[in-house]
Amino acid sequence: MTKHLLAAAALIALSVPTLAQEEAAPAPSPNEIIAAAPDSAWIAIEPEDLVVMRLAPDLDGNERTVVMQLMPPPFSQGWIENIRTLARAEYWDGSSINRVQDNYVVQWGQPDPGTGGTEKPVPEGLNNPTEGEYTVSSPNWLTSSVTAATRVPRVLGDWPAPMMTDAYANYASFRDGFPIAGIQHMHLARHWPVHCYGMVGVGRNLSPDTGDGSQLYTVIGHAPRHLDRNIALVGRIVSGIEHLSSLPRGTGGLGVYETAEERTPIEWVRVASDLPEAERPAFEYFDTATEDFARYAEARANRRDPFFNVPAGGADVCNIPVPVRAVEG
Amino acid sequence: MTKHLLAAAALIALSVPTLAQEEAAPAPSPNEIIAAAPDSAWIAIEPEDLVVMRLAPDLDGNERTVVMQLMPPPFSQGWIENIRTLARAEYWDGSSINRVQDNYVVQWGQPDPGTGGTEKPVPEGLNNPTEGEYTVSSPNWLTSSVTAATRVPRVLGDWPAPMMTDAYANYASFRDGFPIAGIQHMHLARHWPVHCYGMVGVGRNLSPDTGDGSQLYTVIGHAPRHLDRNIALVGRIVSGIEHLSSLPRGTGGLGVYETAEERTPIEWVRVASDLPEAERPAFEYFDTATEDFARYAEARANRRDPFFNVPAGGADVCNIPVPVRAVEG
Repeated sequence: MTKHLLAAAALIALSVPTLAQEEAAPAPSPNEIIAAAPDSAWIAIEPEDLVVMRLAPDLDGNERTVVMQLMPPPFSQGWIENIRTLARAEYWDGSSINRVQDNYVVQWGQPDPGTGGTEKPVPEGLNNPTEGEYTVSSPNWLTSSVTAATRVPRVLGDWPAPMMTDAYANYASFRDGFPIAGIQHMHLARHWPVHCYGMVGVGRNLSPDTGDGSQLYTVIGHAPRHLDRNIALVGRIVSGIEHLSSLPRGTGGLGVYETAEERTPIEWVRVASDLPEAERPAFEYFDTATEDFARYAEARANRRDPFFNVPAGGADVCNIPVPVRAVEG
Repeated sequence: MTKHLLAAAALIALSVPTLAQEEAAPAPSPNEIIAAAPDSAWIAIEPEDLVVMRLAPDLDGNERTVVMQLMPPPFSQGWIENIRTLARAEYWDGSSINRVQDNYVVQWGQPDPGTGGTEKPVPEGLNNPTEGEYTVSSPNWLTSSVTAATRVPRVLGDWPAPMMTDAYANYASFRDGFPIAGIQHMHLARHWPVHCYGMVGVGRNLSPDTGDGSQLYTVIGHAPRHLDRNIALVGRIVSGIEHLSSLPRGTGGLGVYETAEERTPIEWVRVASDLPEAERPAFEYFDTATEDFARYAEARANRRDPFFNVPAGGADVCNIPVPVRAVEG
């Protein structure tokens, strides 16, 4: 991979655009760059890392299925183990979508006690991770300085994914297909996954509570990055987020539904590996440590396809969505 | 105002937090800062600058009204005049919501010819603004350097609103209650309004078309800032965005509805000043050139209210929504 990355860095260095309008030759759009990439750039998501949530059918009787990808190590593994345990205990079967706050989050799980839910207890033996685990300290991830990070995502030094300046950290980048941010202090780097659209996090009460994973939410608006490092992120929705983002907004405080009738029932939640093989969904994500991803990220920051007159000259990490595709069985 | 701004700058300089967890005294949340501000910090929106859009009732027969605020000068005034002209010609009466693309935009107007719409022509005499008018060149807005812009929004020099670093420009800030971004080149500054959640823009075809204002969209996802300087922004939704953001997503390309039946009908669109006085909605926005707004922006970047353990240390302009409130008649 390394030789490709060097080639990508050179390519990007040559193509940094001016802020003025360009007389550009026809250039591929970001999506065209992805579409032209080889199959080897796509990484299959393990069935153990996919969680399938079946909602009650919509008013027209259509099936509604949401699929979540759990994050790979090193982030949030205590909560992620809990989520597998909760799914295997059928904890969420008969639970519901309880909160939909516009431009913020959709939250699900058993509703608050006394509000018409099943009052099902969580299974025994869940992990109880601490706040320190919201982030990961990484002395060895970066040996090069990242002070050269610019608004346009670029591959820098020995870090394999494009890196860019960030409003909330020293830099933002990607690791194993997920958006991350980082700060450097002396020889230590600290990284954390970030709250982009569709990311899934763990509801909690006030500190020191960190949540056990039984209450989950996903982002349905502008990235609420102030939640980074304050809440555990555990994954992202890879399919069906429209079944959550288009739900009626709750009219109670924080978008909580005021009546049980407004809640969308959750029929069942399963880890994909626990479903019969024929019923397992299959997804791949685009390898964020490839030359093609670096070209895609750069093109997101400087659109040159025909609709655009002025390339932006930058992009924030949440405006560079990692491509995900379904694999037909 | 100036003395207050100097006080705000001093206050912010004293309160810049460390990245480590703080043993903070109970601190007001951003919303508490706004709630405690005097009424003088709120600016009434002129009825001439409010556009009311009445959708068909929902399935339960509930009224659905969306209210848009048109942007004040100097931005996009050619298109904004067109929007008033189109509303007064009743152009949008009987039109529809034609496109809902998840994490992107909702678009409305007369549907494409031949797809079951009224094929109503636009009125005569509309302005035809050029691409140069997407941005405003401003030699006099800033006399101080903005190189001191930091991730935490701060009042800098003689610019009255908090200013911060930005992934897409030299800095971002606010002007007359709207989020803007800017680049400086020698003695010239160029500013433009930015595509935050709820902002309203003008649909167009390929350049040199700039749109006439008859096709409008609003952002319902993460800020698509790559559209900045490529499309005219004309205002923002100040009420009822949930009636747009919760609509079913279109399944055609770009989220366009594939059948006429999926479209949500628009009953009428009026400039509020053309409605009978008793039926006019009234809104105020928070003055972005006040000490209280500077405190609010700083608090958005560094949450210290009890839920938060780690202040973010920054915020991007679209995560600092300008407060808007309805005024009861």
